[in-house]
Amino acid sequence: MNFIDELTEALIPEYARFLDTRIWQVLMSDEKSGGGKYPRPLDLWKHYLWETYHYTKHNGVNQALCVRHTPTTEKRLLRAQLRHAIEEIDHDFLALDDLEKMGVDREEVIKSRPEPETQAFSSLIFDLVLRERPIGRLGYSFWAEGCLNAEQLPLVAQRVRYHFDLPDDQMTFLVVHAELDKGHSKAAIKAIEEHVKTDEDKEAVIYFGKATCRMYYHFLEGVFDKFEREQEQLRQLERTAQLV
Amino acid sequence: MNFIDELTEALIPEYARFLDTRIWQVLMSDEKSGGGKYPRPLDLWKHYLWETYHYTKHNGVNQALCVRHTPTTEKRLLRAQLRHAIEEIDHDFLALDDLEKMGVDREEVIKSRPEPETQAFSSLIFDLVLRERPIGRLGYSFWAEGCLNAEQLPLVAQRVRYHFDLPDDQMTFLVVHAELDKGHSKAAIKAIEEHVKTDEDKEAVIYFGKATCRMYYHFLEGVFDKFEREQEQLRQLERTAQLV
Amino acid sequence: MNFIDELTEALIPEYARFLDTRIWQVLMSDEKSGGGKYPRPLDLWKHYLWETYHYTKHNGVNQALCVRHTPTTEKRLLRAQLRHAIEEIDHDFLALDDLEKMGVDREEVIKSRPEPETQAFSSLIFDLVLRERPIGRLGYSFWAEGCLNAEQLPLVAQRVRYHFDLPDDQMTFLVVHAELDKGHSKAAIKAIEEHVKTDEDKEAVIYFGKATCRMYYHFLEGVFDKFEREQEQLRQLERTAQLV
Amino acid sequence: MNFIDELTEALIPEYARFLDTRIWQVLMSDEKSGGGKYPRPLDLWKHYLWETYHYTKHNGVNQALCVRHTPTTEKRLLRAQLRHAIEEIDHDFLALDDLEKMGVDREEVIKSRPEPETQAFSSLIFDLVLRERPIGRLGYSFWAEGCLNAEQLPLVAQRVRYHFDLPDDQMTFLVVHAELDKGHSKAAIKAIEEHVKTDEDKEAVIYFGKATCRMYYHFLEGVFDKFEREQEQLRQLERTAQLV
Repeated sequence: MNFIDELTEALIPEYARFLDTRIWQVLMSDEKSGGGKYPRPLDLWKHYLWETYHYTKHNGVNQALCVRHTPTTEKRLLRAQLRHAIEEIDHDFLALDDLEKMGVDREEVIKSRPEPETQAFSSLIFDLVLRERPIGRLGYSFWAEGCLNAEQLPLVAQRVRYHFDLPDDQMTFLVVHAELDKGHSKAAIKAIEEHVKTDEDKEAVIYFGKATCRMYYHFLEGVFDKFEREQEQLRQLERTAQLV
Repeated sequence: MNFIDELTEALIPEYARFLDTRIWQVLMSDEKSGGGKYPRPLDLWKHYLWETYHYTKHNGVNQALCVRHTPTTEKRLLRAQLRHAIEEIDHDFLALDDLEKMGVDREEVIKSRPEPETQAFSSLIFDLVLRERPIGRLGYSFWAEGCLNAEQLPLVAQRVRYHFDLPDDQMTFLVVHAELDKGHSKAAIKAIEEHVKTDEDKEAVIYFGKATCRMYYHFLEGVFDKFEREQEQLRQLERTAQLV
Repeated sequence: MNFIDELTEALIPEYARFLDTRIWQVLMSDEKSGGGKYPRPLDLWKHYLWETYHYTKHNGVNQALCVRHTPTTEKRLLRAQLRHAIEEIDHDFLALDDLEKMGVDREEVIKSRPEPETQAFSSLIFDLVLRERPIGRLGYSFWAEGCLNAEQLPLVAQRVRYHFDLPDDQMTFLVVHAELDKGHSKAAIKAIEEHVKTDEDKEAVIYFGKATCRMYYHFLEGVFDKFEREQEQLRQLERTAQLV
Repeated sequence: MNFIDELTEALIPEYARFLDTRIWQVLMSDEKSGGGKYPRPLDLWKHYLWETYHYTKHNGVNQALCVRHTPTTEKRLLRAQLRHAIEEIDHDFLALDDLEKMGVDREEVIKSRPEPETQAFSSLIFDLVLRERPIGRLGYSFWAEGCLNAEQLPLVAQRVRYHFDLPDDQMTFLVVHAELDKGHSKAAIKAIEEHVKTDEDKEAVIYFGKATCRMYYHFLEGVFDKFEREQEQLRQLERTAQLV
């Protein structure tokens, strides 16, 4: 079995758990906007973008930090790491732009603290990149750039459109990524084929891939928890208002 | 409101979620060992210690790393950080000792990879300590050293004894900690009262405290997931054996 | 006084010390190759390239590491840091290529330890970038990219040609840099004008500039010390040979 | 040859260069206080303490940072690193205390930037500890704790007393260290004998030892350069005053 197949097989069970997340189920359901269950259904999408901002702002940075413990003689790998970092460096602003168009104050998002699950997702990447084999980060790129399911992002975009009636220019984070990932998923596979050589490299890529996948699951559930806590507060406020 | 009260109030909702974890519920239930539901109930405790090993091995280290971005003029704080680090530095071996007495191979645990939730819990601490205000780590010490509930560890020890009929010398991780934490919780409160001064310090301590609490919840659930996956495999093996 | 003038004034006294280094004096002297004083005069140039390899191999890396403590909202600065890093990433191989053409084994250079002064020069940059304000690194770029003296590198190239009769394809490190630096010095000034804003930024740029300048002086003297120690050994070997 | 002898042999030539430094020669000369050559001879000692403050303030910190890349299973080494760090953590305040008693403002020293050679000396240690094998730092401890010459510090103390007529309570940095180093040099040798095992460890200890020795030489010369620049300014002021 070649390594790409081995990696795919290792990640599939973790990746499949995304289908169990509550945000995915809401999006895939045909009942629009949670079927009236939530006072402000669009807030789900806002929370998703808000938390997404907080981890994507670090992605170009922790990608660049891979060079710290990569051997200085590995020129092609170093260059690939830095080029990828440059491409990632302002993707967080796509999420901010979308939020701004929906009326959310940009500075408020920037100044806020992320949910613990969001922070832990970024921290995991920073920590493994700086304390372990940085080559492992390719295991994250592998699933995050769509190598397991090239159709996922276009599907998400379609469902977000359906549920929230958003125009494309308020969905730049999804629309731009769906386009970019076509090239990125090929680049990730090429980088893995070229640079992942030893058994230690492979083990690092698989562990990093599985661990980031698992923590992204918790990230998505964390977004939904935040949304539910807030909707519950809104419901209570409404009930109180009716009593008065 | 003094800051210790403010911190307590902020952490209680996160801390209370520990009561919702499945491992807690099994331990607190009077039905022994999961009521026959699991082929090997003691494995739950072994998995807990196994994963606990993987994060406690980093605790002295990331405590020591606090000195990197602490001002060199803060002598009392630096000394407190390093003394605490020394005390933590070999607590992971208590977990290994307990496991060894229960027949688990020490080297196998050392060489293994932790569950992603375990890794993310340590990574969060490493990352916040090295990239943000290291004073924030006191928010983790606050709940982890028993400031919110001094009786928790003795209670856990009692329930582990009840469920698994373990002698105290196979429960050193719990027994030693229950003893140590009496002093440590006072030390944590004293350190917070002495060193947490500015609004930025306070905000960091509260966020660090909440975020580590939340991720410890995921750590505990991760341990249970691992246990359940394995017990399910055992049940399948048993069923297959009966068919033959 | 604008900041570029202030920076220039602050760095001139340090930069002028390069004229006092022994390697500079040998190169500028019209007496060819040390006037017979040294058994193997070309070794001076080889040692220069050997040690130059050891610090340039880190330059792209520590440039990239600037992103660690740069605010994630500073997109233009982050991108400039990473683009500059990519340009620097393989300049060390120019030095290796030149050495290889002069008969020095590439792997031997790679595996060797640098002189302490060479190592300290790189360590200073790594340390300030990771522990202090990374913006300060622009103070290093300022003098190293030729902002103080655009004619320096072409002059060095001309003198190296005169002394050692080297063809241009054995002087790629100098020739390529002399060409590149035309653009780079403008880019460094532009980056300083755009990104160095606060008094703390300015202080950091000036200190970083002065400190790297001073340590590059020690680097150059360290190269000459190494050369002299080796030439002295060669002289002793020759004398011993004559006695036999 | 055992490793302690090998290390001694490797470091002696670097260590012997301290005898060539101008500060050493002034101290060892019987002609008091530079023989009238310097307007304010005591300033030499003040500059030495001032710059000494700036590197000793980092010594406990970079000693503690050794734990980052030390295997978590090496409990005795980790504990030794942290205990040593605690001992070092406030030695910089001895230098500040001495300076204060001589009338130098404590805060002014704290806020100042060190000479580049001083900074590079600390940066070298930080960088090697965090980017290479931290065990190497024992090569620095070896010579700095007096393993090569136990009598050096008492001799320096005696000469400082002779030249500057300072009472012991203004020489705490030297007096306390001369006492401490008796125990520390034994501890350093013991740590090397216990923990330095592989060829890679040994190579790291030797290189780290030589490199720190060399950079301490530059530190001492940097102190003297700073002193001379300032004395020259004082002489010019005096001459100007005589003209008026």
